[in-house]
Amino acid sequence: MDFSSFLTSLGTSFVIFVILMLLFSWLSGKPGNKVIYYPNRILRGMDPWEGGSRTRSPIAWIREALSSTERDVIAMSGVDSAVYFVFLSTVLGIFVLSGIVLLPVLLPVAATDTAKPTNGTSKGSFNDLDKLSMGHVEEGSSRLWAFLLATYWVSFVAYYLLWKAYHHVSDLRAAALMSPEVRGEQFAILVRDIPPPTEDQTRKEQVDTYFKTIYPDTFYRSMVVTDNQEVNKIWEDLEGYKKKLVRAEAIYAESKKTGKPEGIRPTHKTGFLGLIGNKVDSIEFYNEKINELIPKLEAEQKVTLREKQQSAALVFFSSRVTAATAAQSLHAKMVDTWTAMDAPEPRQMIWPNLPKKFYERVIRQYVVYAIVALTIFFYMIPIAFVSAFTTLENLRKYLPFLKAIVDIAALKTVLEAYLPQLALIIFLALLPKLLLFLSKAEGIPSESHAARAASGKYFYFTVLNVFIGVTLGGALFDSFKQIQKNPNSAVNLLATSLPASATFFLTFVALKFFVGYGLELSRIVPLIIYHLKRKYLCKTEDEVKAAWTPGDLGFTTRIPGDLLIVTIVFCYSVIAPIIIPFGALYFALGWLILRNQVLKVYVPSYESYGRMWPHINTRVVAALLLFQVTMCGFIGIKKFHFTPFLIPLPILSLIFAFVCQKKFYHFFQATALEVACQELKETPNMEQVFRSFIPPSLSADKAADEDQFEDALSVVSRSQSFV
Amino acid sequence: MDFSSFLTSLGTSFVIFVILMLLFSWLSGKPGNKVIYYPNRILRGMDPWEGGSRTRSPIAWIREALSSTERDVIAMSGVDSAVYFVFLSTVLGIFVLSGIVLLPVLLPVAATDTAKPTNGTSKGSFNDLDKLSMGHVEEGSSRLWAFLLATYWVSFVAYYLLWKAYHHVSDLRAAALMSPEVRGEQFAILVRDIPPPTEDQTRKEQVDTYFKTIYPDTFYRSMVVTDNQEVNKIWEDLEGYKKKLVRAEAIYAESKKTGKPEGIRPTHKTGFLGLIGNKVDSIEFYNEKINELIPKLEAEQKVTLREKQQSAALVFFSSRVTAATAAQSLHAKMVDTWTAMDAPEPRQMIWPNLPKKFYERVIRQYVVYAIVALTIFFYMIPIAFVSAFTTLENLRKYLPFLKAIVDIAALKTVLEAYLPQLALIIFLALLPKLLLFLSKAEGIPSESHAARAASGKYFYFTVLNVFIGVTLGGALFDSFKQIQKNPNSAVNLLATSLPASATFFLTFVALKFFVGYGLELSRIVPLIIYHLKRKYLCKTEDEVKAAWTPGDLGFTTRIPGDLLIVTIVFCYSVIAPIIIPFGALYFALGWLILRNQVLKVYVPSYESYGRMWPHINTRVVAALLLFQVTMCGFIGIKKFHFTPFLIPLPILSLIFAFVCQKKFYHFFQATALEVACQELKETPNMEQVFRSFIPPSLSADKAADEDQFEDALSVVSRSQSFV
Repeated sequence: MDFSSFLTSLGTSFVIFVILMLLFSWLSGKPGNKVIYYPNRILRGMDPWEGGSRTRSPIAWIREALSSTERDVIAMSGVDSAVYFVFLSTVLGIFVLSGIVLLPVLLPVAATDTAKPTNGTSKGSFNDLDKLSMGHVEEGSSRLWAFLLATYWVSFVAYYLLWKAYHHVSDLRAAALMSPEVRGEQFAILVRDIPPPTEDQTRKEQVDTYFKTIYPDTFYRSMVVTDNQEVNKIWEDLEGYKKKLVRAEAIYAESKKTGKPEGIRPTHKTGFLGLIGNKVDSIEFYNEKINELIPKLEAEQKVTLREKQQSAALVFFSSRVTAATAAQSLHAKMVDTWTAMDAPEPRQMIWPNLPKKFYERVIRQYVVYAIVALTIFFYMIPIAFVSAFTTLENLRKYLPFLKAIVDIAALKTVLEAYLPQLALIIFLALLPKLLLFLSKAEGIPSESHAARAASGKYFYFTVLNVFIGVTLGGALFDSFKQIQKNPNSAVNLLATSLPASATFFLTFVALKFFVGYGLELSRIVPLIIYHLKRKYLCKTEDEVKAAWTPGDLGFTTRIPGDLLIVTIVFCYSVIAPIIIPFGALYFALGWLILRNQVLKVYVPSYESYGRMWPHINTRVVAALLLFQVTMCGFIGIKKFHFTPFLIPLPILSLIFAFVCQKKFYHFFQATALEVACQELKETPNMEQVFRSFIPPSLSADKAADEDQFEDALSVVSRSQSFV
Repeated sequence: MDFSSFLTSLGTSFVIFVILMLLFSWLSGKPGNKVIYYPNRILRGMDPWEGGSRTRSPIAWIREALSSTERDVIAMSGVDSAVYFVFLSTVLGIFVLSGIVLLPVLLPVAATDTAKPTNGTSKGSFNDLDKLSMGHVEEGSSRLWAFLLATYWVSFVAYYLLWKAYHHVSDLRAAALMSPEVRGEQFAILVRDIPPPTEDQTRKEQVDTYFKTIYPDTFYRSMVVTDNQEVNKIWEDLEGYKKKLVRAEAIYAESKKTGKPEGIRPTHKTGFLGLIGNKVDSIEFYNEKINELIPKLEAEQKVTLREKQQSAALVFFSSRVTAATAAQSLHAKMVDTWTAMDAPEPRQMIWPNLPKKFYERVIRQYVVYAIVALTIFFYMIPIAFVSAFTTLENLRKYLPFLKAIVDIAALKTVLEAYLPQLALIIFLALLPKLLLFLSKAEGIPSESHAARAASGKYFYFTVLNVFIGVTLGGALFDSFKQIQKNPNSAVNLLATSLPASATFFLTFVALKFFVGYGLELSRIVPLIIYHLKRKYLCKTEDEVKAAWTPGDLGFTTRIPGDLLIVTIVFCYSVIAPIIIPFGALYFALGWLILRNQVLKVYVPSYESYGRMWPHINTRVVAALLLFQVTMCGFIGIKKFHFTPFLIPLPILSLIFAFVCQKKFYHFFQATALEVACQELKETPNMEQVFRSFIPPSLSADKAADEDQFEDALSVVSRSQSFV
């Protein structure tokens, strides 16, 4: 790729971005679109536009985003979102501080070197961009000192800001956990691996006796986990029929207005997909079905609560401190029984995973790791092929029928710029679902934990496949035999092929932020889908609401995506410092646009009180480590005798990671008691806390029908529970 | 070494053993020796002889040892000793069950093979002993199946018995921890890394406020750790002078009886070692010194309590469950502050280590590991030399002046049998002190933990140096260059040199149990020292008592020593099954003799409630793993095509270790709550518990002088402390 095609790519991206911006300004002002652009505010019962004025300047959202505080973010979207912004601003800070020093120093140092490039230039002709990179510096030149010291500068800036960020996130988490408001999950623990009860005991009695002995003063009540598969199925059927009934009634009501005054009663066929079978009156049919299912559900609820009790339970305490200590303490002398942990929020509980057995979980975990490792390894091959094939020369050579299209000059430049990157982006979109599924299969009890696990896998995936895969792809294609002979040359190979892919990644970053964030802000796709659905499918209020409900921020893919950019920018920051402004722009734009989205669009689907941070921190340090090791190799092949001066850096990174882990990590696994012991605003309503954990398929429609919970949900010992 | 010298060695050992037995029977019956043979009973105020009769049969001790129960052992010597017997009996069980199958099967299989030995025989001539070993079996013979299956048998017997033993030890620990008696350390936690207090707070107020907030109902009081170096010095001086005064008075009193009725007042010189300086009247001088030091001590106590408070504290709770949860829970959001752990017993607290800082401890640990690793590595060299030099041929060759002695036929045989082993045993006696010192330097807070750490290091030491060192020593001496060329041959080398050292280790084991346990039971050395001291040195009752106080069992060296035998016997069990009866005899004799010693002689110096067990279990499994890997190599070099059938075994061992760790280990680190929540016999006297933790140098002579503790030891909030 030459310089002009790089500029073209940059230009096109920017034009697309501007168009999307304009679209956003225009569309977001229309009242009919407010559910797309302000759903989070609407769902919270707030006025979509701050101040209520409809005639706003098109850049009002920027002002609002910039003036919003961390407190606003926490109020609107929770601690997890605030932590995500800490991540964005920390990385932005690292890049800005690095750029301020590296750009004015390294660019002149590289550009004024007189040497002819010996290796490490882009494939194809030598061009202006490469002049600004370290590849342009002569071997063994004392100018390399500047690059060596730059590596130190970037590393220390990163350590300093990451350290501050970890402190800040700890404080955020502590503040949220010590909030005087009653949060149910702070009063409960999840107990798994309960041994079989004795003959004369029910599971419920067993659990109650056990915890009442240990915590005579603060034990409130327990809820034994049941196998809800059957009851869930019936409940979902019932809910489905209820929705369909509402829909049929809406259609009937509408037909009264538009057609004959008595209306047309809607009908449908009962067979496969409504295409075959008997034709029935929909309203009657659904009413019948609902009346049939309600007693069935109630019966199944009773059976479930009484007979399908599993070896896990939620235990409730009337004190936050007790719940926090109970979640951290060993209860049984056999460690693999009565294992306790913090209860997840009710909304993020993965019920089917709760009763999974201790060793089953361990085995599942290793099996999943093995599968993921195999997947990572075998995806390398297709990525390498994609990267090697999708150059225009190759396309023309292997797919001659494309020649006519490819040879149009304008199109050629665009294609040349985007083709490999697009293939990559589409390819990566297929993975997250699989990884989330695999993570849940490990037996993880909460959605947020599963998201973290999937996100971690996705990170290794992207870094290994995209970064190392693309970098080495071309080189491997040619020099596969060489590697086979001498596997130690892999590090050298990485170092030699990095500069060759610099412009590829420059374009990749630019594409990601201009087009990616443009699409993010303008929400073109959800908007179109919403309008189509509303016009042709939705008949009831609920259906319309479902059509615009925005979902959450999607940390599972968002964070690994950002971390990939971090890895790329780190690794190129010294080799080709010109990438730093692009990285900074990515995170600046990301901060701004996502601030808007978090405040106005996305609705968080869970709250993990910032547990994502240790995960992010570790991976940023891992990226830093990769950068430092690559720099060792890269300065090494420049025949620079002082390369060993870089060796302390990777060691320092490992120590930094170790100290972070020792100093902060445990607090992200467990609740510190000094935090949990803060006074509450009011005495918690334990009944309400307890009820919030009952899964919807088990909660009776008639609200206060207490009797039927007696079976699996333990009796309140009202005489004792509050002391 | 040929067969006859082996028999001579065995014979001599046995004769020594019989003599020592007879000595024991004779000496232990004499009333003057009862403090040597029954100190544990005497110190507990029991009658030395059970039933009180002096005329006992010489084998009465065997009957008593065999009829004693685990409960007796726990009552007389604590859980740690009982756990040690579980270890002995488990290993004995493994060897007996292995021997029952392996001896009748493998010996005939090996002996009846007609092949000439191809490798793996003892150095020197082919002899009868080697006929019974696996080295006698032809290469690739299908007889090797028997040895392969024997490896499986030994492994599964070991798994089964270790699993049962771990269960049993868990129960022992649980029973001890749930005992209804009040044990001080169960009501306290040790808090380290306390951050600096704010300006307007003393350390004591800071600690009290912190814990009172978190545990408003059960917090009793705190004791801030002080820097006791100064006060300890003064206190030791004072105690020394007090002893000397008593001694001087005793001498004076005696002189009245023997000499003139007015007596001779003892005098001494005040200079170096009492040899130079002014001659003074001892009684007056010591009285003067004591009167001088008492006010100095009191002043120093006050200064220490007020001004030398450190960043660690003991915190007392009025409930066992609270103390157990507090020791396991995270208190501060910065994990490296306010770190809590179980309080050690007062008697095993290592005070100077308590205030050591978090990262200082980590760094110290790694430094110590590095030193130990270096030591292990560099001791290999002398051991290899010792092993290569101390053969008679070499001695004659290199030290020709010994020729005359060495050539006496009888002496020659004895020397040949014992020389290398004696060198080894003396050599190993020098190490434990160093390792214990290094372990304490890590910053470990309790004696029992330091003993475990030292014991672990000693185990690696002995196994690496003695077992692998001696085995490879001779071989390495010859084939050092070969290893340099191809380091992969090390495993093969181990496998080939193992059989060559079989008789060496056979003799080593026999020597250890006959002579070692003979000396252990007869207590010749302590007896002689005691009588010499009593006759020539001791003047007062206290001095006599100090002369016979027996000390503890010495787990630091005893357990690694036993584990070395376990490793040796495991590794040879299949190669030369004749070693199994020796191993079994070692542990049977050990069980019997130590049972006597534990019940009657040794006084435990601490109680760790069986925390030694996970350590033992891991190392027995490690020995098993070494055995299995060696067998892979050994059967492999016999060109047996089914060797890969052995590969599942090491993997199984790793899984076994992992499952043990998961299932049991955590309970040995922390107190399970279901154990701690057992009812107590009486409401604990918290004042007494608290006082038991005050170090002797700080506890005032006048008993109830509460005021002076107010400074570092927190005030009891009497209104709140019992709820």
